[in-house]
Amino acid sequence: MRFDVLTIFPEYFEVMHTGIMGRAVRDGRFSLVVTNIRDYSLDKHHKTDDYPYGGGAGMVMTPDPVMRAIEAVDPDHEALRIYLSPKGVPFCQEMAEELASRERVLLLSGGYEGIDERIIELGIDREVSIGDYVLTGGELPALVVMNATARYIDGVLGSEESTDEESFASGLLEYPHYTRPRVYRGLAVPDVLVSGDHGEVAKWRAARSLEITAERRPDLLAKLGIKAPKTDG
Amino acid sequence: MRFDVLTIFPEYFEVMHTGIMGRAVRDGRFSLVVTNIRDYSLDKHHKTDDYPYGGGAGMVMTPDPVMRAIEAVDPDHEALRIYLSPKGVPFCQEMAEELASRERVLLLSGGYEGIDERIIELGIDREVSIGDYVLTGGELPALVVMNATARYIDGVLGSEESTDEESFASGLLEYPHYTRPRVYRGLAVPDVLVSGDHGEVAKWRAARSLEITAERRPDLLAKLGIKAPKTDG
Repeated sequence: MRFDVLTIFPEYFEVMHTGIMGRAVRDGRFSLVVTNIRDYSLDKHHKTDDYPYGGGAGMVMTPDPVMRAIEAVDPDHEALRIYLSPKGVPFCQEMAEELASRERVLLLSGGYEGIDERIIELGIDREVSIGDYVLTGGELPALVVMNATARYIDGVLGSEESTDEESFASGLLEYPHYTRPRVYRGLAVPDVLVSGDHGEVAKWRAARSLEITAERRPDLLAKLGIKAPKTDG
Repeated sequence: MRFDVLTIFPEYFEVMHTGIMGRAVRDGRFSLVVTNIRDYSLDKHHKTDDYPYGGGAGMVMTPDPVMRAIEAVDPDHEALRIYLSPKGVPFCQEMAEELASRERVLLLSGGYEGIDERIIELGIDREVSIGDYVLTGGELPALVVMNATARYIDGVLGSEESTDEESFASGLLEYPHYTRPRVYRGLAVPDVLVSGDHGEVAKWRAARSLEITAERRPDLLAKLGIKAPKTDG
């Protein structure tokens, strides 16, 4: 699989060469090509933005440098082209899994103040948001989308890690984790987890998942068609 | 304002020294202290994780190094202490604004496979999620929270930028932006935006915001108590 990132801040993506992502790139699990949109500006100052028509705060990314950059890295439109923006459809675990099944994904990181709408009309397949908040640009969102997606590519996670039992895999939030020591500052690990009874451990974890989800994210239960369990008070 | 980040991957935070965030740090708008949790491990190999009680995939962060790191950087519990995790409460624009009003915010980035629950019980005030997806760790979420929050700190955004008119400021998604050229590849900027009639521009933008929100995020309209406008089909 190949990721392309288009940005005016390529330095944000150096972090993709460290840690789990860096190992995966070196092992050839996926490739990453970062393109500086400024290199495609015909303006002598490599300008990529201009004032908004109709007035208002913030600068808007102009169509030409972005369109030329998109067409240079993906001339035959083989990539799914995503623009990261707070007005996009919400990114979620299912979308991460879907993206991981594609040959090529192109991520356009614009300034979050906005890009010319005609770029989206002419060059973008899907507008995606990582959450209901505004950032200075689309660079962190592109890193988030790549990280969540890459976890589904074979060989990226080590054998001891897994995407099967985590938050959202079942549509629920994850149960609490415990490791050594057995007692820490007076707090003990729940007995069931040291009982060696795998059936009881699984039951306890499922019950905690349901409880935490009901308490914090009743919207996720509603999506699954589960009614929140009754609680006291 | 001061941000503390606790992590085993401090290199993720070098990006905070570039771009708008880097300028804000250099200008003293806020400070950022990154602490490596490994430095607080008493283990001779600086180990910070161990196998989960009850079995299962993935390693779990042990309580002692994290607790010692938290108490070293925030001995009097002056900071709001946040743990980034997919089972946290959803981060949103209102929370960004709230965090920006605080003196100190501490962000704990753990491995997303999980940390020992007793860390949360003993040392954390709030568990926060940036979205319904799983990442390799809490580093990108910490960067997202800092970026969205810092935008509300005086002087971080330039005078030409603004947090007033963007997505979510009104509870709605933002209207489309246009800049020069007036016609690009046959697509023209909507006439109203070049009319010079500020009232008409404002009306057009409000209508587009409502339309886009109704189409993509009816849940946001429901929150505001607005019924989605009727559309054809």
